Amino acid sequence: MHDTAVETRRERLRRSTTAEIKEIALRLLVEGGPSALTLRAVARQIGMAPNALYGYFASRDDLVVALRDDQYAALAQAARDGRDVAAAQGVDGRLRAWAHAVREWALENPTGWHLIFDGPTGGHRSAPCPTPPDGDFDMCMPLLEFAEATLPHSQLIAASTAYRWSDFDDALTERVRAALPDLPPEGIALGLRIWARLHGLVAFELDGRLRAPSTVAAAIYDDEITYLLRSAAADEMDNPPEDRSEER
Amino acid sequence: MHDTAVETRRERLRRSTTAEIKEIALRLLVEGGPSALTLRAVARQIGMAPNALYGYFASRDDLVVALRDDQYAALAQAARDGRDVAAAQGVDGRLRAWAHAVREWALENPTGWHLIFDGPTGGHRSAPCPTPPDGDFDMCMPLLEFAEATLPHSQLIAASTAYRWSDFDDALTERVRAALPDLPPEGIALGLRIWARLHGLVAFELDGRLRAPSTVAAAIYDDEITYLLRSAAADEMDNPPEDRSEER
Repeated sequence: MHDTAVETRRERLRRSTTAEIKEIALRLLVEGGPSALTLRAVARQIGMAPNALYGYFASRDDLVVALRDDQYAALAQAARDGRDVAAAQGVDGRLRAWAHAVREWALENPTGWHLIFDGPTGGHRSAPCPTPPDGDFDMCMPLLEFAEATLPHSQLIAASTAYRWSDFDDALTERVRAALPDLPPEGIALGLRIWARLHGLVAFELDGRLRAPSTVAAAIYDDEITYLLRSAAADEMDNPPEDRSEER
Repeated sequence: MHDTAVETRRERLRRSTTAEIKEIALRLLVEGGPSALTLRAVARQIGMAPNALYGYFASRDDLVVALRDDQYAALAQAARDGRDVAAAQGVDGRLRAWAHAVREWALENPTGWHLIFDGPTGGHRSAPCPTPPDGDFDMCMPLLEFAEATLPHSQLIAASTAYRWSDFDDALTERVRAALPDLPPEGIALGLRIWARLHGLVAFELDGRLRAPSTVAAAIYDDEITYLLRSAAADEMDNPPEDRSEER
């Protein structure tokens, strides 16, 4: 009993120190960019000997990976929350809510977005969504549900295409086939294409390539989603484009 | 006369040394990534004192910018060449050729692509195409010509959208309005969206997010283009999707 209590207290302390290290590291990144994040700078700010820090993170890369995983989890949660808010709206409404949640999270957490997609140690390396740290592909499910619902009567896939399951990441296809047994492999290709469109616009906006005011970037993003939903011509076309006059 | 000849010879020597420095710098980047490119490493490989190198490039950033501008020029040239090959095919054929030329250049020059779009000193920062070093927007003209030709009868723009010229980069709109007087501001928004789709897929493929064999990445890219052309429903629909059976 006594040993367990001591262990628990140590673990709690370790967890709290780890959280503090990550909080400081993220702030250094946000305020100064990749070059500002060094283990030495973290140690100085936390008032810890640099050597003690190695007991928590063996290298700068390990720390960056931990930050990236946290940011991925936050993005995935935001995307799920967006989908859940629109749970009653059918696949179209859920896709729209998901896409807006992704963009809004990115605008609020640009450093997190860069960490996930082009972080100093390289982004995640799988498709159609970024591979989450724990191999859970929940984040991209709204995309794939949309693909499943719209594929049979959609203009979105060219008829000449023949994809196979082996064309895609094994871990992803295994997860997708369990969750969406009616989705053909074309659905993954479609999910990838949709994700590339939305990801591309968010990345342009974050990188300042959409030099226009952010209301215009929002309008362009919304146009893309609206167009996507129209093209899919799903029965669940239950979300007509909003009137954006008050946004302009 | 004599002075001019001497000057010319000096200039020629300087040009040749500059070219050699850039060639070595690009090779260091290709082989070792951003951290391998240092002025010290370039000086060592070229057999020059580090101080002498500063007479050519005042800093590593200056050298990177010079490399990036070269790579941009090469990408723009490849895109133009692609368009020119399909000059007789109408706007659809030209867009398709342009898009394939962009992807092929990226696959052959991944370091160049990263330099242009997410290089160590940041990518170019304008839209809808990356801003070329000399402010010439020729690279994106096939996109905008396509937008101009298809906009009147296209499903690609949601009717509720009202864009203004002031929504976009001044240098770009000035250039576009001179070259394509009939294009409304919606055309720029559409160009951006198309570029985001294509750029997003190429970036996914280069970053290894499309883990599938490259023939599948090619098929997905081609699906997106085919779909784009169909949605645009242009009169010039003169390029039916090729039979890809021999590629698979």
